[in-house]
Amino acid sequence: MRIAEQRLEKLMRRKELDAILFWGVENIRYLCGFTGSDGALIWAREGRIFLTDSRYAEQAKNEVAESSVFQYRRKIPEVSRVLKGLRGRRIGFEAGAVDFESYRRLREKLPRVSLIPLADEFSGLRAVKETEEIDRLEKAVRIAAESFKETILKARPGLRETAVAAALECRFRRKGGEKPSFDTIVASGWRAALPHGAASGKKMVRGETVVVDFGARFRGYHSDETKTLILGKPDAQTKRVYEVVRRAQEKAIRAVRPGVTGREIDAAAREIIGKAGYGKYFGHGTGHGVGLAVHEDPVISPRGKTVIEEGMVFTVEPGVYIPGWGGVRLEDMVRVTTGGCERLTYLSKEIKDNIL
Amino acid sequence: MRIAEQRLEKLMRRKELDAILFWGVENIRYLCGFTGSDGALIWAREGRIFLTDSRYAEQAKNEVAESSVFQYRRKIPEVSRVLKGLRGRRIGFEAGAVDFESYRRLREKLPRVSLIPLADEFSGLRAVKETEEIDRLEKAVRIAAESFKETILKARPGLRETAVAAALECRFRRKGGEKPSFDTIVASGWRAALPHGAASGKKMVRGETVVVDFGARFRGYHSDETKTLILGKPDAQTKRVYEVVRRAQEKAIRAVRPGVTGREIDAAAREIIGKAGYGKYFGHGTGHGVGLAVHEDPVISPRGKTVIEEGMVFTVEPGVYIPGWGGVRLEDMVRVTTGGCERLTYLSKEIKDNIL
Repeated sequence: MRIAEQRLEKLMRRKELDAILFWGVENIRYLCGFTGSDGALIWAREGRIFLTDSRYAEQAKNEVAESSVFQYRRKIPEVSRVLKGLRGRRIGFEAGAVDFESYRRLREKLPRVSLIPLADEFSGLRAVKETEEIDRLEKAVRIAAESFKETILKARPGLRETAVAAALECRFRRKGGEKPSFDTIVASGWRAALPHGAASGKKMVRGETVVVDFGARFRGYHSDETKTLILGKPDAQTKRVYEVVRRAQEKAIRAVRPGVTGREIDAAAREIIGKAGYGKYFGHGTGHGVGLAVHEDPVISPRGKTVIEEGMVFTVEPGVYIPGWGGVRLEDMVRVTTGGCERLTYLSKEIKDNIL
Repeated sequence: MRIAEQRLEKLMRRKELDAILFWGVENIRYLCGFTGSDGALIWAREGRIFLTDSRYAEQAKNEVAESSVFQYRRKIPEVSRVLKGLRGRRIGFEAGAVDFESYRRLREKLPRVSLIPLADEFSGLRAVKETEEIDRLEKAVRIAAESFKETILKARPGLRETAVAAALECRFRRKGGEKPSFDTIVASGWRAALPHGAASGKKMVRGETVVVDFGARFRGYHSDETKTLILGKPDAQTKRVYEVVRRAQEKAIRAVRPGVTGREIDAAAREIIGKAGYGKYFGHGTGHGVGLAVHEDPVISPRGKTVIEEGMVFTVEPGVYIPGWGGVRLEDMVRVTTGGCERLTYLSKEIKDNIL
């Protein structure tokens, strides 16, 4: 967390802040180690204070090493009280995590304090991963991938999409995963045209493609991977769409290296898909950072301004979704290296390995 | 949703609003049926407009019946554009769901519009459940409870807490549940003193109590129930604490009826625990509403001002947590009836049925 600490110190100097109030569980976990679902972290010049409620007070004492821990009954009055005690005049806060109502109440309790919204200032705070974080991400990937291998037999005509999701998620747990990273997507046939088609009661049918987007959480870190299976012999259109998406993904992965922007990586995938005539069927961005949150910086999309650095981890996941017909998405997680990137996910995305 | 619609119409008249902007997934689902994870609902005099991104556009067309559906690439510019098109001057927004940064950007894009924060105005919007909602809650309870019955054999000395959680959660899926309502809590021995002790690698030991707090989601609705198991013959203190919590829970459940406040129900439980000398070991509220969110109105705590109405559904879950020793919590879900309440959860909370 050294780099993050230095960035925060610099930010406080630059903005002349006396403290920063963190509200979002991911940044709180990242900065002080707390794994519960509610609390507030005050990052002040004088030291760090973590506040939580009685449900988590004991746990916080064990988890939070370098901060004082306070227990509150009512979050906002107590956080305000501590901030008042610091006698600071300028307090930054995590504007993307504090809801407007909480802001309004803090504002009311702290009439003499300037509350300074910080949002872009935190972008990329967690984007470059440290060794321990990479280890956890790799473990999360392995839990999910090995579960997938054992589950693939469930993806056969006549079975329901939910059967695949259920089998996968049970294995996550058995292999040490904490939970699925998100609602597992199993979208077959026409449902494969729904980029976020959480597993439904639909039965899979011979000849369909099945988009399976899955991930497991391990010690707070998420994996995220998508395979597209083909149930039986692919027809000409399926083959064509699959190969276009695959070429797009490979081109985007080859474009990854320190110094490029998220936008450039996105453009690499988008160009291939556009040239093949499927541009309007690729509506989402090419990828996103992944770590303590499933979606975090950097953004790999036409709006991705972040300059890619060594140690960042993100997904590369172009897709083509044709309403009424179906869809194909292929997703890997990559870690940026000195001269390019390496895949963290290791299941094959070649069409021949995905025909069941 | 008739009652909710009438309340919103009234609210718009009273606050002279031209539209209300909903941002939170639960209220959006409640009001328009969309089940995805991101979107915005504009509830205007002229009609209802739902906006989401390309991942969910197809799905939204199927799910959202009474609203027009728009797809956005960038949420805030597009929502602002639609709001501008309405030519309204006063737009209410869900202040507990919109983060400050999104508010700031909406504010910037809509310089001529008054954005009116609404928070308390929505309290209890979803609190009284309709028949279809009760059906889903009952199904969620049943999925979780029947899974629990099949899992209880895993709660034995030598096995890890995570084994219980894993077995439970796998069964949720097999029985038609969508996912666990929350990270399943399995807290044994000293960990039972952590009110929110998510299952860990700790092995369970003979003589310990094991707090198991679990729930399943069915069609968006959550169950929430806590059993405290005793592994072997309970010692005197375990028996005493268990019986105090059980009496507190029963007294609170007997106090539930239309017309009382959440505070009064809480006081009923708190009095028993206080008189037994454990007051300082009961740090959380006695209960919370449950539905599309795991925690929603009404609040059953010393701060619970809501007047209880027929049809509300909430938990009653007093607990005693003694650091270093352990803890006991007993939790049921109740539905308020004309003259009292009925339990939706049906697993026994009697000590004799919880000794393994």
